[in-house]
Amino acid sequence: MHKYGSSAHKPTINSEIASPVKTGVVGARGYSGIELSKLLLGHPAATLAAVSATDTAFSLSELVADPRAERVATVPIQQLATLARAGDLQTIFLATPTEVSAELAPELVEAGADVIDLSGAFRLNRNEYKKWYGFEHPKPEWLDRAEYGLVPFVGPAKSVKAPRLIANPGCYATAVLLAIKPLIAAGIVEPASLVIDAKSGASGAGRKASENLLFCEVEGDCLPYKVAAHQHLPEIARYAGLAEEPFFSTHLLPVNRGITAGIYARLRGGAELADVARAYDAAFGSYPLVRHGQASKHKALLSMKRVAGTAFSQIAYETEGTKLFVFASIDNLLKGAASQAVENFNRLRDLPVATGLLNEEDC
Amino acid sequence: MHKYGSSAHKPTINSEIASPVKTGVVGARGYSGIELSKLLLGHPAATLAAVSATDTAFSLSELVADPRAERVATVPIQQLATLARAGDLQTIFLATPTEVSAELAPELVEAGADVIDLSGAFRLNRNEYKKWYGFEHPKPEWLDRAEYGLVPFVGPAKSVKAPRLIANPGCYATAVLLAIKPLIAAGIVEPASLVIDAKSGASGAGRKASENLLFCEVEGDCLPYKVAAHQHLPEIARYAGLAEEPFFSTHLLPVNRGITAGIYARLRGGAELADVARAYDAAFGSYPLVRHGQASKHKALLSMKRVAGTAFSQIAYETEGTKLFVFASIDNLLKGAASQAVENFNRLRDLPVATGLLNEEDC
Amino acid sequence: MHKYGSSAHKPTINSEIASPVKTGVVGARGYSGIELSKLLLGHPAATLAAVSATDTAFSLSELVADPRAERVATVPIQQLATLARAGDLQTIFLATPTEVSAELAPELVEAGADVIDLSGAFRLNRNEYKKWYGFEHPKPEWLDRAEYGLVPFVGPAKSVKAPRLIANPGCYATAVLLAIKPLIAAGIVEPASLVIDAKSGASGAGRKASENLLFCEVEGDCLPYKVAAHQHLPEIARYAGLAEEPFFSTHLLPVNRGITAGIYARLRGGAELADVARAYDAAFGSYPLVRHGQASKHKALLSMKRVAGTAFSQIAYETEGTKLFVFASIDNLLKGAASQAVENFNRLRDLPVATGLLNEEDC
Amino acid sequence: MHKYGSSAHKPTINSEIASPVKTGVVGARGYSGIELSKLLLGHPAATLAAVSATDTAFSLSELVADPRAERVATVPIQQLATLARAGDLQTIFLATPTEVSAELAPELVEAGADVIDLSGAFRLNRNEYKKWYGFEHPKPEWLDRAEYGLVPFVGPAKSVKAPRLIANPGCYATAVLLAIKPLIAAGIVEPASLVIDAKSGASGAGRKASENLLFCEVEGDCLPYKVAAHQHLPEIARYAGLAEEPFFSTHLLPVNRGITAGIYARLRGGAELADVARAYDAAFGSYPLVRHGQASKHKALLSMKRVAGTAFSQIAYETEGTKLFVFASIDNLLKGAASQAVENFNRLRDLPVATGLLNEEDC
Repeated sequence: MHKYGSSAHKPTINSEIASPVKTGVVGARGYSGIELSKLLLGHPAATLAAVSATDTAFSLSELVADPRAERVATVPIQQLATLARAGDLQTIFLATPTEVSAELAPELVEAGADVIDLSGAFRLNRNEYKKWYGFEHPKPEWLDRAEYGLVPFVGPAKSVKAPRLIANPGCYATAVLLAIKPLIAAGIVEPASLVIDAKSGASGAGRKASENLLFCEVEGDCLPYKVAAHQHLPEIARYAGLAEEPFFSTHLLPVNRGITAGIYARLRGGAELADVARAYDAAFGSYPLVRHGQASKHKALLSMKRVAGTAFSQIAYETEGTKLFVFASIDNLLKGAASQAVENFNRLRDLPVATGLLNEEDC
Repeated sequence: MHKYGSSAHKPTINSEIASPVKTGVVGARGYSGIELSKLLLGHPAATLAAVSATDTAFSLSELVADPRAERVATVPIQQLATLARAGDLQTIFLATPTEVSAELAPELVEAGADVIDLSGAFRLNRNEYKKWYGFEHPKPEWLDRAEYGLVPFVGPAKSVKAPRLIANPGCYATAVLLAIKPLIAAGIVEPASLVIDAKSGASGAGRKASENLLFCEVEGDCLPYKVAAHQHLPEIARYAGLAEEPFFSTHLLPVNRGITAGIYARLRGGAELADVARAYDAAFGSYPLVRHGQASKHKALLSMKRVAGTAFSQIAYETEGTKLFVFASIDNLLKGAASQAVENFNRLRDLPVATGLLNEEDC
Repeated sequence: MHKYGSSAHKPTINSEIASPVKTGVVGARGYSGIELSKLLLGHPAATLAAVSATDTAFSLSELVADPRAERVATVPIQQLATLARAGDLQTIFLATPTEVSAELAPELVEAGADVIDLSGAFRLNRNEYKKWYGFEHPKPEWLDRAEYGLVPFVGPAKSVKAPRLIANPGCYATAVLLAIKPLIAAGIVEPASLVIDAKSGASGAGRKASENLLFCEVEGDCLPYKVAAHQHLPEIARYAGLAEEPFFSTHLLPVNRGITAGIYARLRGGAELADVARAYDAAFGSYPLVRHGQASKHKALLSMKRVAGTAFSQIAYETEGTKLFVFASIDNLLKGAASQAVENFNRLRDLPVATGLLNEEDC
Repeated sequence: MHKYGSSAHKPTINSEIASPVKTGVVGARGYSGIELSKLLLGHPAATLAAVSATDTAFSLSELVADPRAERVATVPIQQLATLARAGDLQTIFLATPTEVSAELAPELVEAGADVIDLSGAFRLNRNEYKKWYGFEHPKPEWLDRAEYGLVPFVGPAKSVKAPRLIANPGCYATAVLLAIKPLIAAGIVEPASLVIDAKSGASGAGRKASENLLFCEVEGDCLPYKVAAHQHLPEIARYAGLAEEPFFSTHLLPVNRGITAGIYARLRGGAELADVARAYDAAFGSYPLVRHGQASKHKALLSMKRVAGTAFSQIAYETEGTKLFVFASIDNLLKGAASQAVENFNRLRDLPVATGLLNEEDC
């Protein structure tokens, strides 16, 4: 694993800041887009130069109370490539629907910008798109070029000069993979026994008007949806290296932000609590944006709400005989979208991974 | 005021039930329509024969867990008049948009059905529709024929044989008018001093998909909307007999059901707490579906939630010198829509006003 | 299974009503107690004669808008046995803490009343109380005398003359057992593979003031609690006839009412979807208060909110290869407490099981 | 009004940071205390050296995911004065109950610390405490020494050497005073016509376990409370300079954070919309933490949720003839408590007022 933020090789912030990276956010009216914009407004090594949305009449200051939002230009999506070619947008974040990203990301990379795509457009194999996303991928040759940016399980950025395409992981996939990859790597759970019951706040479904997302529908319920059919399932299976898809269900919580997943598995080979702890210690090392511990000893780690509004991930575990219970939680709009995208930005720029995510000068 | 449910002149339920009234609900997928359907399924003197909605693929049992919902036919809106002419629908409830009701209600009355319209289509004067509802009324000659069904302030049903058109009052208007008409009638408040700050659960805005009604928008806010521009304002002014429109604001609560209104006014002529109590006693008499009392003595009367799910209205009042505070609450979908419509149905059929609204055999 | 409500042997309601059963609710200020009181106020064969609570200053009409609540006496808990001996309370519902019920129920049965206890006091074996409820059972000899009232899986009431003690099942246990007993009975699932991830509205935790149940704590979270330690786990294992306790987790939803459980298991012996359907058909027969069906065909069955406020249970299932997904939902205060208690009351009185639960004269 | 943050006289941050102010938060387990702690952890000119709470077993890292919380000591309240005398705590924030602050604040000021008190202990006249807070003030001689810290309406900090006592304004009072003081100063509203209908998220009531703040009580309601009896009413009247107390009501919203107030008044002297705009422009000048504008032109200014989580205040106004509608919103825990306390801290230290509140290096 990459070592994070050790002071020894930390870049000098001052010289970095001397010329902050010019960034843009596409899909800035959406919930992830708003969070990305807020983070970039406050990022010490970035400038939010422009935002785009299908609604061009939109202005960022309507959505964000921060007065710095007033200085951000709204540009038509059609101008992004031109701005990228001119060097006026160096990194572009796409918080756009999967089908939009599939076309737009390659175009912007070719125009010279690094692209960090928050959609599902570059996470699966070409033959999976029809089944899980309902369309044939229009640029399947780019699927291999993209890098799956699951932080901290992705290595240091390749030191290529060419502009890069990062597939920012899905929200459910992020929460689940951070919890199960260490266990699978340590060989201490029976893969076939894995059951994942995941729940998400309604912001995970985006900001599109639809009857089933109305307040009066979501309120008071905890609705299972896409039973055995959620598009993050093949993403989880692929990046966890599972031969068979695990049990996976998703629920809509009457909550704005947050994902929590109950993960159940049989321990194998006599593994017990201490082995679980060791697996997480080994996997996360000094990564500053995760907390893990035994549930009964660290009850705060069970609370999804405690990580809402933060870039942190939490993993709480417990065992009972050979039964392993793991509860993983993140903010779906931050670690599940915007803040992980900023982690990827930091990685591409060789900055400490949490730069701009802790309101610290020194991460 | 009409006397309610005194046993002396109560009709014999048994003979009534012998041939229950065949009713229909139009707009049955909407929130008010669902409540109406539930009430009519359980009404001792009515049969819910048919429901309609623009979505004809719809079936009531998807929305209502009550197994009796399975026996209710879904009919196209176009067939309603035919059913009415054949006597297969005797009373039709319209939980449809104002523009739809304005056309449909006269057609169904002419086809022989009593119509109870829950929209705003027959509440204002003809010259007010353009300003408050955004369209010219297509059948202004029906505005005089309709009766404004504010229970208990409407008299006994006219003993006409002709089918009747009832304008069921608006939700905000119902809550406010029940609270202020008695005070104005008693002459104890200064009309020009009236300030009404009203709040409604999101179901009041209906079930149409729109961004501003998404869970993630409504949750965590209490948004003022239509400031000085809500269409219930002229309705309140008209039926309260106010020469000048009062201060009136409306807010969207992160709540499914319920309206609560803070009403503030200066007492006049030396009026004090006891006069307020007398005004309400005089106005409501034995009407069984209202509770009123001094706020500091009857704190439960302040709770909107306590009336949610019921057909009751609550009025809590307090004075401080010449200041009068009144808090009025109802369930916007029941007293503000469906249950008041059933009260009007009961009135038309000369049944005790709360029939079918208290789960009692004998109201 | 007992046959419900077939008209052949249905008692004549009129003669029943001639002398309604005098009932009392203890713990009537609690959330289950309030629901019980509402149901009994409207029950055609019962009179709610008295309510009790530790707070004797309490009056039912503060909690329930229904005007019939005003006629219900509040009596000290100490007087209940006397009233029972005098025949003034014939059936007493205990919505009291487990430790209170363990002492009170035997006393009231000995005083001559049928007791329906909503607590956990009579559901487990004597040696399990210390571990799961934290106290030694004070009257273990009564554990065998009590009958576990899981409707419809309990037979017709024993035709004994002696007063009876019913252990009304726990809320989680009810939702889960209704879903898994039919599958286990049919032998189509692998018991060792069972994983249950359950979620409950906050009313399940009762009305006691505690920091973790404050609005600002519960809102925005979905907190796992009592991981592998919930007291309904041994209840589920016992009444499902499971040799090993299944995976079981419980979460606190930011919802007032409702339980939903995701239940995951491996099918065995080549069982498939149709076998699941058959198992439920066989188990529930004509029982009117359950709905079950395939999730993808009957999406409404996935909604916990649709059963909130009703006495129904819902079971939605789906298969994917050998994976079985079941989602079970109930209202925790009704089928999980008050309405199941009324079902037990009906059973003891040989009334149709849904009497008083559907607002119908004829269930 | 004080001029904020003009670069001309801005202190050099670097030299300031060289020795950050050692601060402490008392009442750090409460909702305001948590927010204060978060702000101070990220403040460029402060160190959070210690937190206190009545529960000494408490550790800040249980409440705040930020890893810097782990370095903060928990000290007994009894040690605070000693730490202050030793110079180890230079500014102490009291997020304690009013009665606690009334005793503790003078003690800590005498020990040499600047104290910023978030309670009501130093906002009223000595003869008002019995009526509004229910106790006689134990140290009335300190009431004159305290300064009411309503930013931006308080001048620059007195350049005294002595430690200072700041009475941080109440949450409702802050929202209301920011909205009405400019109007009263401009003489454009009729004071006797003022009506204020205020609503607050439940965090305003603090974190003490009490039945009426349970999730199941607050959810689904909008409960008026302390009708004509809220302790912020005399605070508003006093600091607005009103001879008569205005109409003032307060409601409990089913929301975690935020206050919104509907404020209604008659314009006088022919004043109109433009005069309202001018009054706010004149009052707020370059103060960076307020936004104001006409409601119909700037709808975002009506949203309480948009300021939740921020240090901003919002004021939206509209007129209709002589009627003036103003909607004021803040985050009750930030501008209504913690961030205004930080503004006062900045003021005492002659820092730009928004330092540490916008995640900026340079406000």
